[in-house]
Amino acid sequence: MTVRVLFAAGPGRWPRYAGPLRAALAAAGVAAEVSDRTEDPAAVDYLVTAPGGTIEDFRPYRRAKAALHLFAGVEGILANPTLVQPLCRMVDPAMTQGMAEWVTGHVLRHHLGTDAHVTGQDGVWRHEVLPPLAAERPVGILGLGELGQAAGRMLATIGFPVTGWSRSPRVVPGLACRDGAAGLAHVLGQSQILVLLLPLTPATRNLLDARRLAHLPRGAVVINAARGGLIDDAALIAALDSGQVGHATLDVFREEPLPPWHPFWAHPRVTVTPHIAAETRPATAAVVLAENIRRGEAGLAFLHLVDRARSY
Amino acid sequence: MTVRVLFAAGPGRWPRYAGPLRAALAAAGVAAEVSDRTEDPAAVDYLVTAPGGTIEDFRPYRRAKAALHLFAGVEGILANPTLVQPLCRMVDPAMTQGMAEWVTGHVLRHHLGTDAHVTGQDGVWRHEVLPPLAAERPVGILGLGELGQAAGRMLATIGFPVTGWSRSPRVVPGLACRDGAAGLAHVLGQSQILVLLLPLTPATRNLLDARRLAHLPRGAVVINAARGGLIDDAALIAALDSGQVGHATLDVFREEPLPPWHPFWAHPRVTVTPHIAAETRPATAAVVLAENIRRGEAGLAFLHLVDRARSY
Repeated sequence: MTVRVLFAAGPGRWPRYAGPLRAALAAAGVAAEVSDRTEDPAAVDYLVTAPGGTIEDFRPYRRAKAALHLFAGVEGILANPTLVQPLCRMVDPAMTQGMAEWVTGHVLRHHLGTDAHVTGQDGVWRHEVLPPLAAERPVGILGLGELGQAAGRMLATIGFPVTGWSRSPRVVPGLACRDGAAGLAHVLGQSQILVLLLPLTPATRNLLDARRLAHLPRGAVVINAARGGLIDDAALIAALDSGQVGHATLDVFREEPLPPWHPFWAHPRVTVTPHIAAETRPATAAVVLAENIRRGEAGLAFLHLVDRARSY
Repeated sequence: MTVRVLFAAGPGRWPRYAGPLRAALAAAGVAAEVSDRTEDPAAVDYLVTAPGGTIEDFRPYRRAKAALHLFAGVEGILANPTLVQPLCRMVDPAMTQGMAEWVTGHVLRHHLGTDAHVTGQDGVWRHEVLPPLAAERPVGILGLGELGQAAGRMLATIGFPVTGWSRSPRVVPGLACRDGAAGLAHVLGQSQILVLLLPLTPATRNLLDARRLAHLPRGAVVINAARGGLIDDAALIAALDSGQVGHATLDVFREEPLPPWHPFWAHPRVTVTPHIAAETRPATAAVVLAENIRRGEAGLAFLHLVDRARSY
């Protein structure tokens, strides 16, 4: 039986995914027909989806056993009420590694204070007090999924004392882990650098509001590599203006592209990056897609199946 | 017998070292008198030295069993012909860690291309091609002493393929190691990011000259955290102008402070930092000094004794 896979993640991605996906399915021993279009939605077995994809109404795909999303964040597609099929998030090892590198690079950037040199090549040799060593710079990571764990482990390897927080209890070797509301206050209270790697759910929307920003040590740095909706923008700007937050490096926003008039662009204590922290990479993501299709055909549980009650 | 230690590393350092050094000597079981001055040079058992220190003529300290330098680099004090006593370099674990953090931060800065965002907050959301993962970004480290090894290990842990080079053969777990002239050409030829952590000796002066810069892959980044004299400045500027070298981040210079008229300051492809990559830190360095004094009194070999034939 040939498995029919509809690549509905958008025409921009199709040329980069067609080859790797076919190769990965063949390597997984799945006889499949992969296409970016179909004349018979009812005949499709698996959907590959992404923001900006080609399907708005999922109802005609009534035989589809799963929608396999190319993104780690699924809050967008979950908002589509016509999608009732099982939905799998992407957990791409290359994306996880890329995220850990990006987070580590920006944590070190703030830890070492490199911006002062990158922007201050004015011929003045400034004797400086050296930063403390990483061991004396507590870092907090909100979110202990694959991305939070990988970033936390990389930072801990360098020497930072890392405390991770998740809503429900987690154990991650090498990291101190906290959970729940009291745990969040604890992590915020000690994090000189705070990294957001949480999914955006009804429970995490506006998590970093004025009250919680006030828990941070004065002058703390906030790095958001997850979703813009986790932060109350107005509260963050007020905290930056008052010096409560020393700097914010933001890769994600409520509206993307971030509009040119948005105050984040002009704020001297904000670094905007254009949602580049990490991206699913075709070669490795294709292997994950193929493995999930193989599992579906073999009657095994899907990997990274979204729990709709938790929204991730 | 009370051991007499003269702290001759300069009045600026004395207040930060007096307490830690006395405490470390006591902890090492050495009965010592530590002072920043003496009326009887011939009675001094050990000298603590540093650039900018208080001794120009070492001849009166004829009983001194060793000069214990606070710096890892000894090319300055070796140029003093009156110093004939055994000389020990500083190998301070905190300085080593600080150097590894600084190097890793700047390697990630170049790897991720963060400068474009730090300096380009202009309201334009630029879709970008993501950088490759660290695994696809070969890094070369010239110098495999304590500093080169520590930086190389940290970079390898993050995922960079690191190749280290030293004049004579070395084996460092986790790093590919090359040596000699052929090894240098090999390392240069594959290093998209090249880090200098060599001592400055007659054999390494101007090591990175026009010919060797031409061995680098086009657009490579050079990071110098060791000594300015390792690089032929004019050749580097020519290579930057031609695009052969994409960027240079320089922490050390032939003349420090780097004079305001020096072309490095104004060059768009150079980041000058004011010799801040790493610094000896009193708490940990005092332990190393005390241990060497203990060893000297016990008739044991000194740690980190400088080999004058090799100049480090």
